[in-house]
Amino acid sequence: MAHPDDPLRPGELRLSPDPGSRNDATLAFIGRIRSAWSPEDCPKNIAEARARATPARLEIDAPYRPALTGLAPGDALILLYWTGRARRDLAIQSPRHKPAPTGTFALRSPARPNPIALGVVRLLSVDQATGLLGIDATDAFDGTPLLDIKPFLPGVDIPPG
Amino acid sequence: MAHPDDPLRPGELRLSPDPGSRNDATLAFIGRIRSAWSPEDCPKNIAEARARATPARLEIDAPYRPALTGLAPGDALILLYWTGRARRDLAIQSPRHKPAPTGTFALRSPARPNPIALGVVRLLSVDQATGLLGIDATDAFDGTPLLDIKPFLPGVDIPPG
Repeated sequence: MAHPDDPLRPGELRLSPDPGSRNDATLAFIGRIRSAWSPEDCPKNIAEARARATPARLEIDAPYRPALTGLAPGDALILLYWTGRARRDLAIQSPRHKPAPTGTFALRSPARPNPIALGVVRLLSVDQATGLLGIDATDAFDGTPLLDIKPFLPGVDIPPG
Repeated sequence: MAHPDDPLRPGELRLSPDPGSRNDATLAFIGRIRSAWSPEDCPKNIAEARARATPARLEIDAPYRPALTGLAPGDALILLYWTGRARRDLAIQSPRHKPAPTGTFALRSPARPNPIALGVVRLLSVDQATGLLGIDATDAFDGTPLLDIKPFLPGVDIPPG
């Protein structure tokens, strides 16, 4: 959880109470993302990660491996993962790349009330027995906890014109 | 949490332990979805909801309203919401519309280890003072807890070819 003395940049606004102190529902980590990135050298987003052409994979914990049934190489997937090392108490943020302070819900910053990130990837390989899935790219650092895998459906996951 | 005696359909496989009993991280509900749907008559997905052309809105709780700064009508948004009334203990499911039992991670069923649903919508109106946002459609039933709002970014949220 963020400490009340954690510094703010100019224009930033703190949420109170810290959403990290709430317990409206609980999560179960289903595995983790394995990547070449550390928290310090993560790509800014998955497009940048893809440009660096570095392989990545998912490790699914044993109890969840039967839930992979039906996934096949070539599938487009939505990953949900937990960026919970980031602070959760910022309502308005001043990222370096933005000209003005911006609301958290208008940003893709990992710092958010519920630090759940979303990555749309291409599945390269599936080994259900070991729970290892190859994916084309990720912007997550090594060890990031995984929450969910969903099939990407163009008919519902692209906004109406 | 699912009861160990909850029935399974043919071919279904139960997860043990129930992911609902885990507490790897906690969530804060930021508001709720208001819709015309009850749990019994929800559309199957947002494309079907859109075809029914029924207005929907988001109610954002007071502490989170400053985080809406920067959102404008016309924006494409990704909503994350909590379908936690569904059971969380199914690894393989037999939905009526599928010919064979399928792994949860190959389905968009609300029943999943972490029942976080995703809806890509168009923002119609924003009233930051009251926390009311009009959206073009939702497949969520009235009162569904909201977890996050993110801007949809075509450069990262559409899978590579």
